[in-house]
Amino acid sequence: MDLYKKTVEGIKPLYKESIKLAKERQDFLAKPVGSLGKLEDISVQLAGITGNINNTINKKCTIVMAADNGVFEEGVASTPQEVTAIQSINMAKGRSGVSVLAKQAGADVFVVDIGIKANIDYAGIIDKKIRKGTNNIAKENAMTREEAIQAIEIGIETITDLANKGYNLFGTGEMGIGNTSTSSAVLMAFSKCTSDEAVGKGAGLTDEGLLLKKRTIEKAIKINNPDCNDPIDVISKVGGFDIAGLVGCYLGAAYLRVPIVIDGVISATAAYAAYQINNTVKDYMICSHCSTERAYLYIMKEMKLEPMLLMDMRLGEGSGCPLAFHIVESACAVMNNMATFGDLEVDDDYMIDIRTDTELTAAEVRRVDDDYTIDIREG
Amino acid sequence: MDLYKKTVEGIKPLYKESIKLAKERQDFLAKPVGSLGKLEDISVQLAGITGNINNTINKKCTIVMAADNGVFEEGVASTPQEVTAIQSINMAKGRSGVSVLAKQAGADVFVVDIGIKANIDYAGIIDKKIRKGTNNIAKENAMTREEAIQAIEIGIETITDLANKGYNLFGTGEMGIGNTSTSSAVLMAFSKCTSDEAVGKGAGLTDEGLLLKKRTIEKAIKINNPDCNDPIDVISKVGGFDIAGLVGCYLGAAYLRVPIVIDGVISATAAYAAYQINNTVKDYMICSHCSTERAYLYIMKEMKLEPMLLMDMRLGEGSGCPLAFHIVESACAVMNNMATFGDLEVDDDYMIDIRTDTELTAAEVRRVDDDYTIDIREG
Repeated sequence: MDLYKKTVEGIKPLYKESIKLAKERQDFLAKPVGSLGKLEDISVQLAGITGNINNTINKKCTIVMAADNGVFEEGVASTPQEVTAIQSINMAKGRSGVSVLAKQAGADVFVVDIGIKANIDYAGIIDKKIRKGTNNIAKENAMTREEAIQAIEIGIETITDLANKGYNLFGTGEMGIGNTSTSSAVLMAFSKCTSDEAVGKGAGLTDEGLLLKKRTIEKAIKINNPDCNDPIDVISKVGGFDIAGLVGCYLGAAYLRVPIVIDGVISATAAYAAYQINNTVKDYMICSHCSTERAYLYIMKEMKLEPMLLMDMRLGEGSGCPLAFHIVESACAVMNNMATFGDLEVDDDYMIDIRTDTELTAAEVRRVDDDYTIDIREG
Repeated sequence: MDLYKKTVEGIKPLYKESIKLAKERQDFLAKPVGSLGKLEDISVQLAGITGNINNTINKKCTIVMAADNGVFEEGVASTPQEVTAIQSINMAKGRSGVSVLAKQAGADVFVVDIGIKANIDYAGIIDKKIRKGTNNIAKENAMTREEAIQAIEIGIETITDLANKGYNLFGTGEMGIGNTSTSSAVLMAFSKCTSDEAVGKGAGLTDEGLLLKKRTIEKAIKINNPDCNDPIDVISKVGGFDIAGLVGCYLGAAYLRVPIVIDGVISATAAYAAYQINNTVKDYMICSHCSTERAYLYIMKEMKLEPMLLMDMRLGEGSGCPLAFHIVESACAVMNNMATFGDLEVDDDYMIDIRTDTELTAAEVRRVDDDYTIDIREG
């Protein structure tokens, strides 16, 4: 509880002065103002996060919170429950979707067993198991209030350990059969949206399965009656260990002043829950791809965020994060390495301003007949 | 003319059998079918292009066609004409937007002077100058028919040279003040769209400037009367050397069976023109980001293509391509390195099928009390 409290209370806003300076610098880079769009936005956000105009990503990773969900027994998932354990191991072994994409991006994957319903006998997985899966939210609270705090603190501890090891860009992933159900329940508990808006087909439900899933989540909300003004109440009553762990990652990232990337709908739900705890957390988040689940779009709208990638992906695991990592690093490269208008000076008396929203000065060039010769000094 | 003819006539469809095998392989990778969306699509497309299920990107580059446009004198651009030359040099020096983003992606940039209105005294630029800029399309044809073919053949030669040097993933960029005007004119000549649909603010026109630009392009169409059934007629009458050069790159890529990435609106216009010459070229194209110019969306709709990146970028230069390169390489990594369902076999008698649209077999696991122990052999 102490760590949770300390973290939430220790989250500070972005550095305004650094944001201002970063924007000025972007406007001085040799391009029309704003023409690099979100690459500029990200570089400015990073400045606000770190306090430095120029940022470099040293090490990057996706944290995968893996846990089982009691609601599985209601038949809301199209995949056997054992897959949580199997795919977690597959991920840690580097053979799953997120691991392959992370490797391509030069990133690592850390899988945390925060509540898998199996004895995991594999050293590559970080053992932080609270217990073997949550209770069935269609019948009772998913977990106790204390367990919710414990799960959040595991997330905070995990990201703190990794930040101490030099990681300064994080992604958020999950593995937990049934967790699109708990995500939808958390979203519905926090918002006014209906099950039609909040519930999707997950990894591949039939129309009949979707209807059952909606009814199950409605039942979970009715039975547990979570208090939307008390995020811990919502998370403990209708959430999951995986979601709670990710909430901790988001809170920890904001506390530690490091950027953290949102993946798909479950990761976004955890982001939304963290945002309910402390609105400022949002400023440390970066979106990756647009999930095909409807709830994802609802959350983006509520948080006024916009994804960068239209990939039609719906794998989860944090698989969208490595694609976003490359974009974040590209944003750093723009800020750090692009020429400025100052660099375009030639022979001291030559300078051109191609910013298009300011008064344009005609370039002074040495004209040769009708044309002219450009002779720019080697930089 | 011989090279142009040989290239256009030598373009063959994608390999259907390889596409079929690649799809089957994707469906056997350990993930819900289709859950990696466009990453799967790209890997399948690459198989159709090369004939191999597994592909690796050896070397990648963006080809930037740089040229000036006579229509500049109508006042349709917000940037001085000298910037074409200055930014081309800046690009070749590695300090422009596309160069910085390419470097981050491990890619190269090759700038081709296909018609810059200046004597370029810089060795880093490939000199293929046809002449110093096109004629003013508001008054006459941009170029002769022979020059259009010459420009297209320069594109074909450039991409052929680079493919011979081991490059097997290409991007398309341009530098040419005034080229959003020629792009809009080419688009209007080929399609039924109006100037409201085809003309945008480019790098940063005022509302008044936009109106002038629309009137100018309408005038260009009226005066030159390009024949929409004769792509070379359209390109020569209202296009530019940069656009024509890129048309050659697209045709050359399809002929050589290498994937080529579309950048923003000018690059997309060239793609659309190449598509008018030979529809099959489209199958060798990969989209990158969604340009903020309206004409871009029109072209995407016409060609039934969809961008992957929502970056609010409008720099041009081919700056969206390096971001797409990383995605293409990620698609290769998924195909080459992900575990298959076969890999998930454990102790010979254990196999699980997590494909969600097929009949699911319950996993055989050694249960321990209520739970079970997962013990997967090291792969």
